[in-house]
Amino acid sequence: MEVNNNIPFNKPYLTGKETHYIYQAVASGKISGDGLFTKKCHAFFEETFGFHKCLLTTSCTDALEMAAILLNIEAGDEVILPSYTFVSTANAFVLRGATLVFADSAADNPNMDISTLRSLITPKTKAIVPVHYAGIACDMDALMDLANEFNIYVVEDAAQAIDAYYTNRKGEKKPLGSIGHLAAFSFHETKNIMSGEGGMLVINDPKFAARAEIIREKGTNRSAFFRGEIDKYGWVDMGSSFLPSDILAAFLYAQLENLNDIQNRRRAIWERYHQALTPLTDEGKITLPFIPNFASNNAHMYYVVCKTAAHREGLISALREKGILAVFHYLSLHKSAYFESKHDGRTLPHSDFYSDCLVRLPMYYELSTEQQNLIIQTIQAYYLSV
Amino acid sequence: MEVNNNIPFNKPYLTGKETHYIYQAVASGKISGDGLFTKKCHAFFEETFGFHKCLLTTSCTDALEMAAILLNIEAGDEVILPSYTFVSTANAFVLRGATLVFADSAADNPNMDISTLRSLITPKTKAIVPVHYAGIACDMDALMDLANEFNIYVVEDAAQAIDAYYTNRKGEKKPLGSIGHLAAFSFHETKNIMSGEGGMLVINDPKFAARAEIIREKGTNRSAFFRGEIDKYGWVDMGSSFLPSDILAAFLYAQLENLNDIQNRRRAIWERYHQALTPLTDEGKITLPFIPNFASNNAHMYYVVCKTAAHREGLISALREKGILAVFHYLSLHKSAYFESKHDGRTLPHSDFYSDCLVRLPMYYELSTEQQNLIIQTIQAYYLSV
Repeated sequence: MEVNNNIPFNKPYLTGKETHYIYQAVASGKISGDGLFTKKCHAFFEETFGFHKCLLTTSCTDALEMAAILLNIEAGDEVILPSYTFVSTANAFVLRGATLVFADSAADNPNMDISTLRSLITPKTKAIVPVHYAGIACDMDALMDLANEFNIYVVEDAAQAIDAYYTNRKGEKKPLGSIGHLAAFSFHETKNIMSGEGGMLVINDPKFAARAEIIREKGTNRSAFFRGEIDKYGWVDMGSSFLPSDILAAFLYAQLENLNDIQNRRRAIWERYHQALTPLTDEGKITLPFIPNFASNNAHMYYVVCKTAAHREGLISALREKGILAVFHYLSLHKSAYFESKHDGRTLPHSDFYSDCLVRLPMYYELSTEQQNLIIQTIQAYYLSV
Repeated sequence: MEVNNNIPFNKPYLTGKETHYIYQAVASGKISGDGLFTKKCHAFFEETFGFHKCLLTTSCTDALEMAAILLNIEAGDEVILPSYTFVSTANAFVLRGATLVFADSAADNPNMDISTLRSLITPKTKAIVPVHYAGIACDMDALMDLANEFNIYVVEDAAQAIDAYYTNRKGEKKPLGSIGHLAAFSFHETKNIMSGEGGMLVINDPKFAARAEIIREKGTNRSAFFRGEIDKYGWVDMGSSFLPSDILAAFLYAQLENLNDIQNRRRAIWERYHQALTPLTDEGKITLPFIPNFASNNAHMYYVVCKTAAHREGLISALREKGILAVFHYLSLHKSAYFESKHDGRTLPHSDFYSDCLVRLPMYYELSTEQQNLIIQTIQAYYLSV
């Protein structure tokens, strides 16, 4: 019997209340930024995850750009980031004129290899931007120790890391996004919790909080004005319009109310992939996500790392023949058309390896058991043939 | 008899189909950027106004930032813009490192005094940014002649100028936003046509079209990839995430379908203010919007210019006592806390005059005749007393 063999890579999940809350926002007559639902989202994140201050943005890209402006990144400053990441991690700092210094991934994990970072630090290093790939934590104790030693700011690119945790050496379980000086989240439709397009800046170092509001409000002190803290407002800093419409905050809030349900379902799908595919790792045919002891699993993504690019191409084709869309991910940024001539020439073999060999499997709330069986069986069958 | 004496400055108008289209967008499962409704909006604008290429953005601010990136604005470049404008006109170029050269307003109109611009042009002048204040056209023939003479780019800040026109010396009626090399529109909830937050970049010079898509897609050639023009996509330029969620495009599309109805209602309100208040100009007590022969009226705003700041304060207070919210507008950017020390010292008296003396009256689709009568009568009564 054929199961529904048109399985997308991602399907946005709707809790059912999104349009209801949007209707409320629209009826309120206040649908520009920082309306009722934006405030509800801010409060939810601050209360649920203990973030010092949260500000919704139009995208994670924009949250990273806010971080770069807040850190006064300028020409001559160096920023260390992984080569295996989304372009926005890099662009946010390119737009401020920074020199990018790309770090390699770890051998066992697409995250930056923290042990390589010390050799990349110079007196010009102003920020390190760890990306918690697939929602799996970087080793933040090691990273923050290094950053503190050299007085460097840390901006967590937590685009994929909502509801993911890091357990520090004291045994404290900290939400990702709460550890660096600043952090950026994404609510793009491919994320666990989403609003089509959307993002959030988290300010953990309180010294950035007041200026963050100003930068987000086009460089004006309008937020303080509306709180009655000042008599009139005006242009006091550089800035942009980083506020999303309250329509999108209303959508997001419906998702947040169902965070636990969404996460439970995603974790079940993740675990099922992991159990079913682990025998293939014993045979040495693939490797699967490695979750260090310090990291939790937020089930953002399930991926398989093939041995070679040819195997990956074969696996993607085999899945496509069954109507299943599995997709590769980043291409090493240090080798991109934009950056190759600017790169310092170091080879970053692990980043290149994940660029060539990692493939992401369909992962969404409504993925049925039958559909997941078909995906798993197709992978198993492919590896019988190679 | 008291009419409803709680009259806001602005009330977003809903056509009734916004949430219906949002529901369609959500049900389609594609609510990130560049979905079905984004394409419908692009087509509407291109067909209705003859713009060469339109790209929805998350805000007019972001459209201006795209323009600054497209023009390769960098440190050392000079950009001429009015001092009497919203901070975003300026910030977009500050973020690229430009030197801002502020022009004064005209004596009879808050728009830039085009006759002063020649003296502000230097070999470093890269762009001029005319703002069509209140949707009333700048003299674009004079401006484009000057720009062509000195090989300078023109970016129209058409934030307030949807459905507004300029009649050139050949007698051709051109939509504002179609004349400069690039133009930016706003769909903030205070605008005639809106989506809470939102904007659009218009590309009139075709040489910018391909790169505009790339910059809007985080510096990747993803748009060309999805059109099948290239085999794979990657990082090819600097960029950001300028795409709004299709949820907001769905909202905007409902508004666009009702453009004529919205505009007819707004023009009727505008004309009524104008007829009722003109006698006060004959008495020399106020001045009213001046619409040059070359400009149309898109009824974005109705404003009164008082003789002194004290009169304006008195008028705003008199209106507030009746429950009517009338508001002043920009403060000269060359005198702002952020820019005063960077300004070249020229006085810009007309900009300062509008900063001190201009007041905007309530102007929205659902403003009733009785409410408008109360506003007019309150203004007339105030001017009997001063």
